[in-house]
Amino acid sequence: MAKTNPGRFFEDYRLGEVIEHAAPRTVGEGERALYHALYPARHALYSSDVFAAQSGLEGSPIDDLAAFHVVFGKTVPDISLNAVANLGYAEGRWLRPVYPGDTLRAVSEVIGLKQNSNGKTGVVWVRTTGLNQMDEPVLSYVRWVMVRKSDLDAPAPDTVVPDLKSTLAADDLAIPEGLDFSGYDFALAGEPHRWGDYEVGEVIDHVDGVTIEEAEHMIATRLWQNTAKVHFDATFRPDGQRLIYGGHVISMARALSFNGLANAQMIVGLNGGAHANPCFAGLTVKAWSVVLDKAETPAPGVGAIRLRLVATSDGSVGKLKGADGKYLPGVLLDLDYWALMPV
Amino acid sequence: MAKTNPGRFFEDYRLGEVIEHAAPRTVGEGERALYHALYPARHALYSSDVFAAQSGLEGSPIDDLAAFHVVFGKTVPDISLNAVANLGYAEGRWLRPVYPGDTLRAVSEVIGLKQNSNGKTGVVWVRTTGLNQMDEPVLSYVRWVMVRKSDLDAPAPDTVVPDLKSTLAADDLAIPEGLDFSGYDFALAGEPHRWGDYEVGEVIDHVDGVTIEEAEHMIATRLWQNTAKVHFDATFRPDGQRLIYGGHVISMARALSFNGLANAQMIVGLNGGAHANPCFAGLTVKAWSVVLDKAETPAPGVGAIRLRLVATSDGSVGKLKGADGKYLPGVLLDLDYWALMPV
Amino acid sequence: MAKTNPGRFFEDYRLGEVIEHAAPRTVGEGERALYHALYPARHALYSSDVFAAQSGLEGSPIDDLAAFHVVFGKTVPDISLNAVANLGYAEGRWLRPVYPGDTLRAVSEVIGLKQNSNGKTGVVWVRTTGLNQMDEPVLSYVRWVMVRKSDLDAPAPDTVVPDLKSTLAADDLAIPEGLDFSGYDFALAGEPHRWGDYEVGEVIDHVDGVTIEEAEHMIATRLWQNTAKVHFDATFRPDGQRLIYGGHVISMARALSFNGLANAQMIVGLNGGAHANPCFAGLTVKAWSVVLDKAETPAPGVGAIRLRLVATSDGSVGKLKGADGKYLPGVLLDLDYWALMPV
Repeated sequence: MAKTNPGRFFEDYRLGEVIEHAAPRTVGEGERALYHALYPARHALYSSDVFAAQSGLEGSPIDDLAAFHVVFGKTVPDISLNAVANLGYAEGRWLRPVYPGDTLRAVSEVIGLKQNSNGKTGVVWVRTTGLNQMDEPVLSYVRWVMVRKSDLDAPAPDTVVPDLKSTLAADDLAIPEGLDFSGYDFALAGEPHRWGDYEVGEVIDHVDGVTIEEAEHMIATRLWQNTAKVHFDATFRPDGQRLIYGGHVISMARALSFNGLANAQMIVGLNGGAHANPCFAGLTVKAWSVVLDKAETPAPGVGAIRLRLVATSDGSVGKLKGADGKYLPGVLLDLDYWALMPV
Repeated sequence: MAKTNPGRFFEDYRLGEVIEHAAPRTVGEGERALYHALYPARHALYSSDVFAAQSGLEGSPIDDLAAFHVVFGKTVPDISLNAVANLGYAEGRWLRPVYPGDTLRAVSEVIGLKQNSNGKTGVVWVRTTGLNQMDEPVLSYVRWVMVRKSDLDAPAPDTVVPDLKSTLAADDLAIPEGLDFSGYDFALAGEPHRWGDYEVGEVIDHVDGVTIEEAEHMIATRLWQNTAKVHFDATFRPDGQRLIYGGHVISMARALSFNGLANAQMIVGLNGGAHANPCFAGLTVKAWSVVLDKAETPAPGVGAIRLRLVATSDGSVGKLKGADGKYLPGVLLDLDYWALMPV
Repeated sequence: MAKTNPGRFFEDYRLGEVIEHAAPRTVGEGERALYHALYPARHALYSSDVFAAQSGLEGSPIDDLAAFHVVFGKTVPDISLNAVANLGYAEGRWLRPVYPGDTLRAVSEVIGLKQNSNGKTGVVWVRTTGLNQMDEPVLSYVRWVMVRKSDLDAPAPDTVVPDLKSTLAADDLAIPEGLDFSGYDFALAGEPHRWGDYEVGEVIDHVDGVTIEEAEHMIATRLWQNTAKVHFDATFRPDGQRLIYGGHVISMARALSFNGLANAQMIVGLNGGAHANPCFAGLTVKAWSVVLDKAETPAPGVGAIRLRLVATSDGSVGKLKGADGKYLPGVLLDLDYWALMPV
């Protein structure tokens, strides 16, 4: 048993430590097809090589969230195997599209540590970077998790809480080289609504829903090589339920948001996110969005839109938290991201 | 909510109108693998690049029905989102094989309109064409659906019922350029039975069966980017059941028909089809065929065979309709198609 | 019905007969992605083209077990459609990596026959070889099955029981050309344990578990074009259960063994294997291994390790058989194989 990975505990992390995650992964046409099979993904830029080429890219990239999941999945054995809770995300930036044939690996730096007052757990902040086979960064984000201590007598580290941006500014967003929406074909993309048609504060009910199956979330989560037992092993939790990987809900909600946001093509920034309530098989995921902000970009025909994407299990729209400030029980996900749209 | 697609209603269609469907889709090796994972597909021409090359093709094409599903899926948001019933198919012709790397899009022309006497619904006929990235047609078919009116006061259009062929003639079939079965390897293909061995009227019980799972039909239906809520959202129908996309049953039955029709390699014509009864998860799909017609073709070693393919949920063979002329309850699908076989 | 494959019965096999199996299959990136989606596979050599290239291969091969399943699947219609039991494997050798784009076919030679004393069944031994599009052998193994007689009056053949090695020697193993682990990156591979760190007799509990779903094992089994009714048709067995293809359990257990054996990269030999108890959906598969032997190899930095891999449905570790010599009820699989590791 000494050879299996017990995961890291809170006292195992050192500020400034850099963790190289296993195992690198080549993503290709198979991953692209599976993404479309697992989620109702229809954004044209990720569906058609021709549409992507007409938008100035070299071809249709792997979905931005698929790239995120692959990078995230690699971090699980080192970061969250003994996590009690996934507390938050910040400063997520997509830096370069991932194309079929690219090989991704992930590296994390410990940027914050804070032992909890109970002495049994602590919070670890890491900045994770996904790199391709050219060692070019494709993605970077900060995540913090609450991790158990194994040795309760281990001394508490100095508390360092990183100073994180609550929201990325438009200037922080990386626009893929060559991206050009000036010849954008709205008919082929599926909706006529351009960046200029959206108003800050506007709420969009995405209408469609998907009832979640065990086989599907496990197929997805394995595809990202995420190894957390709680997603796969029905004997792991006392209630016999498999907790669904939060990223599965993110991708499902984002794909559902096509209906009303078909032109919010590329995700380029993640300001924050909360898995508000656990998701289990049998629930029906629906989604709504609200426009939080808009910004111009230097790329031709390209605007940036900041969106709150909310996934629900009860079909509610526009309601997020109760009077007590807590998420309502029907809210699964609250995600704050920047996307690029044709102006 | 104004930004989501409400779908079109009967009064929204105009005779002669051409609808360009979103979103184009690049199909590749991933879609090919998924087709083999979702259906027990074994036809050698679609399984082996080598076998396909020996048959005069440039490689193994994407399954003919996968091409159909991709094209069909694109039409759903514009044609059948508010459909009450999928009434029929006619004049389906596969015009060119689809290869990995091809990008498909779909265009439909409204060729018929007829308001029903109840004033609440109408029938819309469309001729849909699938095109590849060279703008070459790969597939064409007529489909008619019953669609609800939203504005019951909208005037009824002039009734135009298109004149459709009840059956394609052998001359109507497009034989892929270069197709040559004169060196066909029956051992590798899996069965010794050639075109000459089949007699009109012969019934073939395909013996094998597959019990349908929710995860599988949803994975398949999403892969074709078909967005009809009824397939995915268990809260949509009052009975809590997800109706299975009719095309899933078509592909399942066709794949099962390998056992007895392993050499009916390519589907080139669709004369008609009826989804006789709804299909739900838990049913076990089996299939039988009857030979309806045979014809020679100009391609070397290639014959055409017209088949009725029947999918059942009760394992019955050879029985289609009751004394009342209605489909028996155990019949799921009644499909009339032309395939190409080695003579 | 005369045209469907009834399968072969015991009296249909002749000693020395060579059976060419249908249908050839091109495997590609799609199959690679699906393998990672269906099993928690993380071995770096099969995950990353870059890691594989750094190990001297031309790219990341299709998983060794995926190659096995494709070859095995082709034999089912000819060998085991009427099998009562899958009795054993021996002398399995992986001879050459399978790369995306390769087309595999399978050929079997009947090397042994023995009618059982009840006169109703017999044992058939076949040596199956998988070949690529260059007609190069990629895989070879012996399998024996108990098959029913259809004609009980058919005379018994002369009994010939092949002389099989109980264990392959290290010299019997084919090391892929160019394989070189001298620059092996243990951090990227996921574990620090090298060949030298394992001791004969050492038991490794792989800790992780996966609860099996019907959709997943059917998707996997279809992907290998395995057509045995018992895996797909819930009406086939009197108890309404679908028996899970034994190879699904093999792949699941092997993938789970990453945790503790992440560096046992390539499977090159199969000494034997038993599907100890049937597996059904709903069971949670876990795995443990014991080191049976170790050997040096001529390839730079490459050692061979012989492992017993045991899959269980009850999470037990280290226990295989009861006092009566029979497998314990919680044991699903007992597999004896050789793998290659960095020394």
